[in-house]
Amino acid sequence: MSQSALRITPVILSGGSGTRLWPLSRTGRPKQLLALTHAETMLQLTARRSNDPQAFEAPIVVANAAHADQIEAQLAEVGVTPAALVLEPVARNTAPAIALAALAVAPDALLLVMPSDHVIADVDAFRAAIGAATPLAAEGWLVTFGIAPQAPDTGYGYIRTGAPLADGVQRVERFVEKPDRATAEAYLAEGCYAWNGGIFLFRADAYLAALEAHGPEIAAASRASIAAAHREGTRLFPEAKAFAASPSDSIDYAVMEKASRVAVAPVDMGWSDVGSWDALHDIAVKDAGNNAHHGEVVAIDTSGCLIRSQGPLVAAVGVKDLIVIATGDAVLIMPRGSSQEVKRAVEELKKSGHITLDRPND
Amino acid sequence: MSQSALRITPVILSGGSGTRLWPLSRTGRPKQLLALTHAETMLQLTARRSNDPQAFEAPIVVANAAHADQIEAQLAEVGVTPAALVLEPVARNTAPAIALAALAVAPDALLLVMPSDHVIADVDAFRAAIGAATPLAAEGWLVTFGIAPQAPDTGYGYIRTGAPLADGVQRVERFVEKPDRATAEAYLAEGCYAWNGGIFLFRADAYLAALEAHGPEIAAASRASIAAAHREGTRLFPEAKAFAASPSDSIDYAVMEKASRVAVAPVDMGWSDVGSWDALHDIAVKDAGNNAHHGEVVAIDTSGCLIRSQGPLVAAVGVKDLIVIATGDAVLIMPRGSSQEVKRAVEELKKSGHITLDRPND
Repeated sequence: MSQSALRITPVILSGGSGTRLWPLSRTGRPKQLLALTHAETMLQLTARRSNDPQAFEAPIVVANAAHADQIEAQLAEVGVTPAALVLEPVARNTAPAIALAALAVAPDALLLVMPSDHVIADVDAFRAAIGAATPLAAEGWLVTFGIAPQAPDTGYGYIRTGAPLADGVQRVERFVEKPDRATAEAYLAEGCYAWNGGIFLFRADAYLAALEAHGPEIAAASRASIAAAHREGTRLFPEAKAFAASPSDSIDYAVMEKASRVAVAPVDMGWSDVGSWDALHDIAVKDAGNNAHHGEVVAIDTSGCLIRSQGPLVAAVGVKDLIVIATGDAVLIMPRGSSQEVKRAVEELKKSGHITLDRPND
Repeated sequence: MSQSALRITPVILSGGSGTRLWPLSRTGRPKQLLALTHAETMLQLTARRSNDPQAFEAPIVVANAAHADQIEAQLAEVGVTPAALVLEPVARNTAPAIALAALAVAPDALLLVMPSDHVIADVDAFRAAIGAATPLAAEGWLVTFGIAPQAPDTGYGYIRTGAPLADGVQRVERFVEKPDRATAEAYLAEGCYAWNGGIFLFRADAYLAALEAHGPEIAAASRASIAAAHREGTRLFPEAKAFAASPSDSIDYAVMEKASRVAVAPVDMGWSDVGSWDALHDIAVKDAGNNAHHGEVVAIDTSGCLIRSQGPLVAAVGVKDLIVIATGDAVLIMPRGSSQEVKRAVEELKKSGHITLDRPND
């Protein structure tokens, strides 16, 4: 094993455009670039999580080219200089995005793939799980981190854990699609299921080999676009036409569900993908009235609300269990508990021409 | 009786600054300058109501000096040129405001005093009531129009009607303060009560004589300020120091409740003072879901709501019976049925320094 495999190279995926947190998240300023849970943005929290020269190389960030300036500025604010900022000319989901990163490093580099828009409250637990997974990953296993489920959530894929491979690491018995409520409850009762949080640890060459085997068109397009890439400082621009030829697919579908040496490191680390306004209310610091307010908000006789303003003064009087999100040009109002409807609302708004999203399918 | 008493001079009072329709109404743009119920603003609707050369002289408009330009522009839009725009240097409530108008016309002019921020759906009924009241007003009676109460509303003063004086006009037996709910219900059951809508018909000299008798300080201050007024075209600027010396009082307290020859012309004319967001919802055209929306509003699975935007896109999803008012710099959210709380909210916002109103007591 070469030196490069001992230290881990974080691969931070910043590709999403995020309609579920509309109107705060926009095409030009997706969720990961927003400060939703802390003073730092989610990208900054992610970068800081692996900003430890003892254990980690400088990160590779894979992002939408449109966000390059914002990403560099945000990383600079927290003292992180990426080894490379790989700028996708178009969005092709996670399998090609990770391939670009894997092709930009030494073959035996150990990659810790992290979405840039998740929060992890217990970083020590995360680091421990990484430690447990590292030997297997170094041997060529594709390791996913299995999030200890906190509720029978129907919004996540689940992983059925199998036989132990090492301390803290098990075989993946199978990946299962987002279940219905009853199935999710059964999974929790069984106790051998974890959420698929989209965080991975593997060698670059192991990932690429699995991708060659199970998603050869993705592998070929990624290779061709990196071969013809141009570089400006740390910015790496994969060739657009070649990359656009790649199928759009997630790492889960294209690789993890099909590859043979796939392991899961279960971990309970206060994880949240902040995938909805309800999720943000869940993890937010709340007042005595169960309200989480942010920005210029004046709430009177109000309870159970998430009210955020990024611009106008929001005055709420006598309301209960509402989500109110205000920006300079849009206001969203919905009952708490229904924030999965944002997606539908955004679809309606697109259809009616009220808003435009350049990359609606991210 | 001189010619000037045969035609009626409308006196349009545009003094309010209106916190009850915050955040749409502001110090700089009070309720009467807003288009709340029609394409025209409430001032424009009021001016058009008496824009009939057969029956009415050009109006006298009494207003806050800060609104002069807006008022002239709005009146011009509906083809109304005021005989005079009397610009109050400070707000002193309706008794002095009407005195200024009464002092600016011939003593025997018949004045139809109208707040500029009420709607009247049935103008024919209003004109009929004016017709009924005119002979008594010409004889020196102070006539108020008694609005047929539509509900046991606790937000209005009531008038107990007394003995008939002429067809459609009765003596005022007494004015009563805003009642509690039970009292209001009893009034409605009795059937001889009307709401005090703040619309009056009287001769200028009759009003001034009553004011001399019952509010001599107001009369003196108004006379002094008109004596030292300066004029710029149709704009009349009462002298500021003299006018500021006037007590601040309403015509009801200062004159109507104390004078002897006071009559009421009961009228059922689809009147509303649009005194709250709830009142606006009541009179608004609504969709099948009992929603009244205005501006850039997208409502999905929404019912019973009043949603108005004057700026941002407002997206409401799955909400019921809410009032949502959005402007470029403020958003108000409250349950329908509680819009009297706006006043309290505005107080809180002033206390916390979030908003400033120059004339908060108007």
